[in-house]
Amino acid sequence: MVEATVTLVEGMEFSGKAASGHTITMDANEQAGGRNAGSRPMELLLVAFGGCTGMDVISILRKKRQNVSGVEMNVRGEQRDDYPKTYKEVHVEYIVKGKGVQPEAVERAIQLSLDKYCSVGATIAGVGTITHSYRIVEE
Amino acid sequence: MVEATVTLVEGMEFSGKAASGHTITMDANEQAGGRNAGSRPMELLLVAFGGCTGMDVISILRKKRQNVSGVEMNVRGEQRDDYPKTYKEVHVEYIVKGKGVQPEAVERAIQLSLDKYCSVGATIAGVGTITHSYRIVEE
Repeated sequence: MVEATVTLVEGMEFSGKAASGHTITMDANEQAGGRNAGSRPMELLLVAFGGCTGMDVISILRKKRQNVSGVEMNVRGEQRDDYPKTYKEVHVEYIVKGKGVQPEAVERAIQLSLDKYCSVGATIAGVGTITHSYRIVEE
Repeated sequence: MVEATVTLVEGMEFSGKAASGHTITMDANEQAGGRNAGSRPMELLLVAFGGCTGMDVISILRKKRQNVSGVEMNVRGEQRDDYPKTYKEVHVEYIVKGKGVQPEAVERAIQLSLDKYCSVGATIAGVGTITHSYRIVEE
């Protein structure tokens, strides 16, 4: 069971805390009556997706003994025009940095994450299409 | 278009930043090779859901001129046993505090959020069942 409590601070600002104990501040932008004191909830979805698939990919690449020094995910999501404005399309670009990292290992790690392991990705994939790309940077 | 960048910090710790500019730290727990330096990605989903529906509900209650002094969402999610372990059931309890707040106004605000406006809720509802309850606290 995963639990979280989210409390109104003021205006449109909310403070969230889940069982792991970390505080997440959320707020609307100025046009929506907020003050941008924290993240938009729909941004958190993409951040969570990047973290979720990033954890999968780095774990798998380490198991495959790839010499990885860095991983970055650039996530872009396009929302539907109509309410509830769920994500229609989400693209994630993986940038994997390291020495002699094998493209087939990266491809396989991404595939395993997106097709099998990543809970947040599977949730987004319930309402939209996820596409991906990757680049390997030698360093 | 919503954009976020998520970068490996070390171990299983990732740092995420979306267009609004706020940093979100994510990490796995110790059993999964992390150090709990930040939130679990699947926790963020529930936090985002609480913030999303909380913003809807407070906006609607203010428009209905309800004298609300506080709103809190307790969100609990049960994941499936099998990968990708998406949420099977999510329950959100709303606690609305204020003076003379009308139950029918609260019910209607929650209904509008869950059935129409809340993007994160609609995303979770794509893979699982969302149930809700509410309490009004006079203060």
